[in-house]
Amino acid sequence: MPTCIWEEWMAETTTVQKTEGRPDYSSYRPMEECDVAQRLATYPEVVEVLGGRPTEWAVREVGDGNLNFVYIVKGPNGSLCAKQALPFVRLVGESWPLPLDRSHFEHGALVRQAQRSGHVPKIVTYDPGQALIVMENLGRHKIWRNALIAGERHESAADVLANFMAETLFRSSDLSLDAASRKVEMVHFAANTALCKITEDLVFTDPYRAHELNRWTSPELDDTVAAIRADAEWKHAVQEMKALFLTRTEALLHGDLHTGSVMVSRTETGSEDVRIIDPEFAYYGPMGFDVGALMANLLLAFYAQDGLADDRSGMKDWLLAQVERVWSGFAERFTELWRTERTGDSYHRSLFEDVGDEEASAAACNTYLARLQVEAIGFAGAKMARRILGLAHVADLETIEPAERRAKQEKRALALARMLLVERHAIGNFAEACERARQVDGEER
Amino acid sequence: MPTCIWEEWMAETTTVQKTEGRPDYSSYRPMEECDVAQRLATYPEVVEVLGGRPTEWAVREVGDGNLNFVYIVKGPNGSLCAKQALPFVRLVGESWPLPLDRSHFEHGALVRQAQRSGHVPKIVTYDPGQALIVMENLGRHKIWRNALIAGERHESAADVLANFMAETLFRSSDLSLDAASRKVEMVHFAANTALCKITEDLVFTDPYRAHELNRWTSPELDDTVAAIRADAEWKHAVQEMKALFLTRTEALLHGDLHTGSVMVSRTETGSEDVRIIDPEFAYYGPMGFDVGALMANLLLAFYAQDGLADDRSGMKDWLLAQVERVWSGFAERFTELWRTERTGDSYHRSLFEDVGDEEASAAACNTYLARLQVEAIGFAGAKMARRILGLAHVADLETIEPAERRAKQEKRALALARMLLVERHAIGNFAEACERARQVDGEER
Repeated sequence: MPTCIWEEWMAETTTVQKTEGRPDYSSYRPMEECDVAQRLATYPEVVEVLGGRPTEWAVREVGDGNLNFVYIVKGPNGSLCAKQALPFVRLVGESWPLPLDRSHFEHGALVRQAQRSGHVPKIVTYDPGQALIVMENLGRHKIWRNALIAGERHESAADVLANFMAETLFRSSDLSLDAASRKVEMVHFAANTALCKITEDLVFTDPYRAHELNRWTSPELDDTVAAIRADAEWKHAVQEMKALFLTRTEALLHGDLHTGSVMVSRTETGSEDVRIIDPEFAYYGPMGFDVGALMANLLLAFYAQDGLADDRSGMKDWLLAQVERVWSGFAERFTELWRTERTGDSYHRSLFEDVGDEEASAAACNTYLARLQVEAIGFAGAKMARRILGLAHVADLETIEPAERRAKQEKRALALARMLLVERHAIGNFAEACERARQVDGEER
Repeated sequence: MPTCIWEEWMAETTTVQKTEGRPDYSSYRPMEECDVAQRLATYPEVVEVLGGRPTEWAVREVGDGNLNFVYIVKGPNGSLCAKQALPFVRLVGESWPLPLDRSHFEHGALVRQAQRSGHVPKIVTYDPGQALIVMENLGRHKIWRNALIAGERHESAADVLANFMAETLFRSSDLSLDAASRKVEMVHFAANTALCKITEDLVFTDPYRAHELNRWTSPELDDTVAAIRADAEWKHAVQEMKALFLTRTEALLHGDLHTGSVMVSRTETGSEDVRIIDPEFAYYGPMGFDVGALMANLLLAFYAQDGLADDRSGMKDWLLAQVERVWSGFAERFTELWRTERTGDSYHRSLFEDVGDEEASAAACNTYLARLQVEAIGFAGAKMARRILGLAHVADLETIEPAERRAKQEKRALALARMLLVERHAIGNFAEACERARQVDGEER
């Protein structure tokens, strides 16, 4: 990017950047492929991992995400991943400025997730003023979404994600923290408004109105899109979910927990490793949002299968099994934490266990999870639909050709999305959501 | 208070006081009755209102609240009310420190309430570092609670409070403000943790466990108290309400909207004036909390009547009518604002009115209010019970003698409180809540 452009952005976004407690970006310079090695050589931790001299380092830009530049750097002794935020949305371009401090929030989230659960990339160095996070290179790993598209099954992913969500959500909430500490945390991440705004617009609003950034398989879905924009029940349900997203500060969310934010690997001996990356959307929101995001992407993968290959019936069964496995694993771990780590101000033990009332505590946990599940089902519906109607699509569906074949699968996914939103209370649990997914899949459209 | 004691408190609470954006209390000195005039004479706005010389001013301490010192000061030309926060809870004493910055939040709330609705005392001067708010003296007014105890009816109070709540809640929410602006506001008041903690403990927790600060009509209610502490459904419901209070940052609440925070007056010609005072508990929480608090105190007044005088049947009918009137007035004004002032990010007009879908918007408003009403009913139950089981009681019931007579009315109030909490979804609206109140009142206990 030419120097002049980012300087312009910096000037324009100064008021946002200078807010109390956030990094000073006055010396920020975006790296370019040609100077990445030279720039990274200024960090001793980087030199130590890579070894040799910067001229020996191989640099490759790999960012396939929507927002940032990501470089893989290889040296004689090892490799690293360097992620630098840009002052605009990469997917859209310079017309959409975006604060650099999302890197600050991503770093804050990575540190907390590592403490609370693990399964995140190890940070090698963080340079706040450069909006730069240098992490371990997950070279053996692939994006889970791509594995699912290829029909590959990583058996441990569901369990790791279930535990990750239960641990990061529970341990950042009032169930674990005292109210004042939770508020300090909540306030810290409340400043991540620009990234929240992306979710508010792209997930909960734009797909349901005419907007220049929307795109869909056209003309095949034109009528469907028009019908959805006039669907009062659907819009009403989505706005209920948006209101929760806006106001319910339950736990520190990853905020963008789709299958593209998960990396998986398997050694020749079958040993798997699963990592959760890219928490720059982190903020305090409703727990069900993370759970719903992941479920949505598994369900999108389910509907994509028949468009991707001729016989994927086994993979389809497996995907729905993962949905149920994620929920049951999540509920199990959450319940365990409820029993053993409930040190916060919410559902205080002095009212339950401390007076011998384990039964009431268990009942309260079940009710809590039942509500959370209903909310997660609603969020799953919202997250499915936006990937078909809005700006950012998913490769699972996008790679299906020809368009008619893709549209057929997208219509099925949209039919389920509507159910999950509008009938979330009646559906009530992910086993039933999977049953609905199968029903919709069997219907001719 | 001797100088040494408050200096000790200041030293101990320094870490809390010094937080960014809050006043510097290093020159804070509590006023005493003998130096109030001299201290207030340093504010030109005060001198202008009172007239004459400080030696001519009459000072009277009138604080009957639980937290602060309040002085009425009269001069040749006019009078004023000076409210100064103390670094501890007045009701309990120096063993319970409390940050002075509650005055900062009270001032912030008064300013916003005046802009958004009115019906609050006019501020003459605010000295942040002295935690001192000087306001107009509402000399003609009396505390609404005292009027209700005396069996007096102020016909405009319900309507004023309904509008006040609808306007302050709606206009501070995402329905009116864009998400980023609402978050800035929310973050500002999120620092009022110490006052929130009082509510969390005294309303939602302590009444349901053994705690040295609890008190109740004993021995008459001993068995009832023991039964409530073992009542799993009740505790579960209260914890659900507490979780909402802790995490749902919907709107800027008054935070302590009982009938002792309302002042009423009536001239000889029958013209009434109603004011809402003391918003030092202000913070972003669930809208239903303010509504429920007010309803709880009207319902407590209802149950107190038969203990206060021999024939209060007319007053009892009137009180329940006010409960319904507050809700219907609130819903009407809220709906009007929903239609005419919905400029925020929640339920954005571009999805509804802008595409001609007024019907879907109206349906969404009704659903929103239905949920709000259920939450308000639950909060009302919690707020009723704490006034009988916890630290802070209400004069309505406290003035009933002898104790057996008081206990009889308190048991009725507790029976309703349980219903409002545990059966809030089934009750669903305040008309039904009033019906339940009548049923409980008719039963022998």
